[in-house]
Amino acid sequence: MNRPLAALAELVGAEHVLTGERIAPEYGHDEALTVAARPPAAVVRPADAAEVAQILRLATEHRMPVTARGSGSGLSGAAVPHPDGLLVSFERMNRILEIDTENHVAVVQPGVTLSQLDEATAAHGLVYPVSPGELSASLGGNVATNAGGMRAVRYGVTRTQVLGLEAALPTGEVIRTGGKLTKSSSGYDLTQLIIGSEGTLALVTEATVRLYPRPPHQSTVLAPFRTVDEVARVVPKVVASGLAPVILEYIDAFTMAAITHTQQLELGIPAEVRDSAQAYLLVLLDSRHADRLDEDTEQLGELLTGLGAVDLYVLPGAAARKLVEAREKAFWTAKAAGANDIIDVVIPRATIPEYIRITAEIAKRHGSHVLGCGHAGDGNVHLAVFQADGEVRSALLRELFEASMKLGGLISGEHGIGRAKARYFLELTDPATVALMRRIKAAFDPEGILNPDVLLRSP
Amino acid sequence: MNRPLAALAELVGAEHVLTGERIAPEYGHDEALTVAARPPAAVVRPADAAEVAQILRLATEHRMPVTARGSGSGLSGAAVPHPDGLLVSFERMNRILEIDTENHVAVVQPGVTLSQLDEATAAHGLVYPVSPGELSASLGGNVATNAGGMRAVRYGVTRTQVLGLEAALPTGEVIRTGGKLTKSSSGYDLTQLIIGSEGTLALVTEATVRLYPRPPHQSTVLAPFRTVDEVARVVPKVVASGLAPVILEYIDAFTMAAITHTQQLELGIPAEVRDSAQAYLLVLLDSRHADRLDEDTEQLGELLTGLGAVDLYVLPGAAARKLVEAREKAFWTAKAAGANDIIDVVIPRATIPEYIRITAEIAKRHGSHVLGCGHAGDGNVHLAVFQADGEVRSALLRELFEASMKLGGLISGEHGIGRAKARYFLELTDPATVALMRRIKAAFDPEGILNPDVLLRSP
Repeated sequence: MNRPLAALAELVGAEHVLTGERIAPEYGHDEALTVAARPPAAVVRPADAAEVAQILRLATEHRMPVTARGSGSGLSGAAVPHPDGLLVSFERMNRILEIDTENHVAVVQPGVTLSQLDEATAAHGLVYPVSPGELSASLGGNVATNAGGMRAVRYGVTRTQVLGLEAALPTGEVIRTGGKLTKSSSGYDLTQLIIGSEGTLALVTEATVRLYPRPPHQSTVLAPFRTVDEVARVVPKVVASGLAPVILEYIDAFTMAAITHTQQLELGIPAEVRDSAQAYLLVLLDSRHADRLDEDTEQLGELLTGLGAVDLYVLPGAAARKLVEAREKAFWTAKAAGANDIIDVVIPRATIPEYIRITAEIAKRHGSHVLGCGHAGDGNVHLAVFQADGEVRSALLRELFEASMKLGGLISGEHGIGRAKARYFLELTDPATVALMRRIKAAFDPEGILNPDVLLRSP
Repeated sequence: MNRPLAALAELVGAEHVLTGERIAPEYGHDEALTVAARPPAAVVRPADAAEVAQILRLATEHRMPVTARGSGSGLSGAAVPHPDGLLVSFERMNRILEIDTENHVAVVQPGVTLSQLDEATAAHGLVYPVSPGELSASLGGNVATNAGGMRAVRYGVTRTQVLGLEAALPTGEVIRTGGKLTKSSSGYDLTQLIIGSEGTLALVTEATVRLYPRPPHQSTVLAPFRTVDEVARVVPKVVASGLAPVILEYIDAFTMAAITHTQQLELGIPAEVRDSAQAYLLVLLDSRHADRLDEDTEQLGELLTGLGAVDLYVLPGAAARKLVEAREKAFWTAKAAGANDIIDVVIPRATIPEYIRITAEIAKRHGSHVLGCGHAGDGNVHLAVFQADGEVRSALLRELFEASMKLGGLISGEHGIGRAKARYFLELTDPATVALMRRIKAAFDPEGILNPDVLLRSP
């Protein structure tokens, strides 16, 4: 280990290679609830793409595992380092290189955070619309997990927004993919292949992302329903209406009580409504025109009332923002409430009622509690799992994932597989698909240095 | 060759393996202007995914080249077969398996045509929005080239719409990727990797595609401008306006004269306006509400007039449809006019004025004519190249592609590289990228049977 470390120090400067006690605790973990923290052999903080490529070349030569880290806000353990490996932290590569108002794109380094980008784009009346809850998250991390969030129902996920990448390969080259281009038919789409690959194929050193006009008028509607089933049945109707909501979330009554309590949020919902509501639908509409927004809000209200909403609340700006924020913080609420794990399966959106019925049965059978909320418009169901026994919890999770796949779904909509769910992914995915993914991994990473315990658990 | 052909006949039925004179001429070509027609050794017409997989397994075993064919409407020669190889024609796999109105998706076999799907979705008030001009094109072919078309500026390209695939691998397995899911973070996105791979990685046997509500109100505005430069400068402003046009095309005066003449289209533009206009902007807006559409059309008109439009024509329904159709047929107009080649580079949309200036210089230097139109909102510039001398034309094309790449663009926005442009692609693309793509190709297709002369020209 000493020889490569000396070479690394020469490459990036000794002050940017941390070992032993100089490794701060946060480098040992991300926010996954079930992946134990452990420090890497060394933390490396490169300054540019050429340094990243050299680090990877060196790691390939010495067969040292490499894990990339943005802000460490991931929920699946893909940023938890290997104890014998390097953690490449992108904290120094944190510049917004360009806001291009003509082509409506931003060019960013991987360490740029969502809040940093939001501030910079707001100054131009533009917005980067991916909002996965944690605004301290880095763009590099968002690319690695294909982050989603509440606004995906309107704007799509990270995959939809990233038009081009610069990336360092384990073989030591730096490549460029795509560009300020919304379309291309010029060879394999390496941009899309790298997005969502959880640091197992290449390290992203720059991303070109789409920006959109920031619509000035917004309205937020909260509608309680008697059952989760009812609220889930409403979702396809809202999508079909053409109202094009920015946010379309369902929140079960427990989760609503927990997030409003934690965030000390008073929404003015009478006790009798609260008592009769098992679930809520949260809808955000926006428009360039105030009058169109009023008209759309009214149409939405009529639609929801006709479909069984117990009541309707058009929330004032401050309360709306607080509720959206509280919903974004649902992970922290679940964690504080003692959830043992959280998952985010994705299923065809029309199957949400069925899936929620099935999860209740599975939870009951295992003597566990499973509560949740979800990006209903995307079929992305977020569940907090309460079951302290690791073995029972594993059996429960496996059944929850299996049930999702039987409905045509997949294990994760936006959190990724990481370390936390690699075992289930490998057990439940068709072996031909896993074998193909492993061959693709080898095409990028012949020595298997990049995040070897993540996703495919390369041998 | 006889042994594998006998095995094929046993597999799909002797009547579905065509050789010699039973091979109709159309199996020997697509619509590429510069790729010579040549019949394959045999045409095979499988009935289902299992048969396709068996065909590929057999071809891998015997190292026989395999080319897939949908409708043969491609423009880059990716469906032109190898003379010693098999042409897998998807004409029997032409069923729409499902229109799912709850999840807003269609599940189709690869031989389904765009017009077939349009008819089926219209019955439900839905639309599949990819419209690459040739409605006889197959969905399988659209997936292979990542087809775009005029509506991409609003809805995105094929890549945006395809949520899941079933595909047969050269190694003989059938895999499923994605599903009725608008997001996923569960392993490498094989759906996106296969889209646009021009039949070189896997053969698609089923696709799940997004559908959208079909907006009832449309308006079409045609605006002549004094220069191509002026019209191109307007484009980012229209995108930034938030009007979200469905179509945003520029058409140069020559192309406009040609398409209106060929289609016998009378738009009522006075001769003095025609004489002063070097280029036109064509904009289609739509809305759920007639009054909003009127308001948006007025706003667009003011914007265009303020930016130098010589005049404004809000076209009545029939004329609008005819003009859009004529624009879609621009390829045929160019072909009829004797164009020697057509290309479709993609560049950052704000660089269109610069690129058009550069193309004029390059054309002049080579004593050639280059005329065009383009999906201006996407930076996708379609050029008809008039130069009969093959060698001069090659030098000219190389410079046109190089110029696009210098502006941050790529060789093709939607037609693909195919056989026609493989040489330029390999010459102009970074060798590390080409090498990586070849390793990915080998991960799918270890014996290199799938379209070996296309895109990467595998050894």
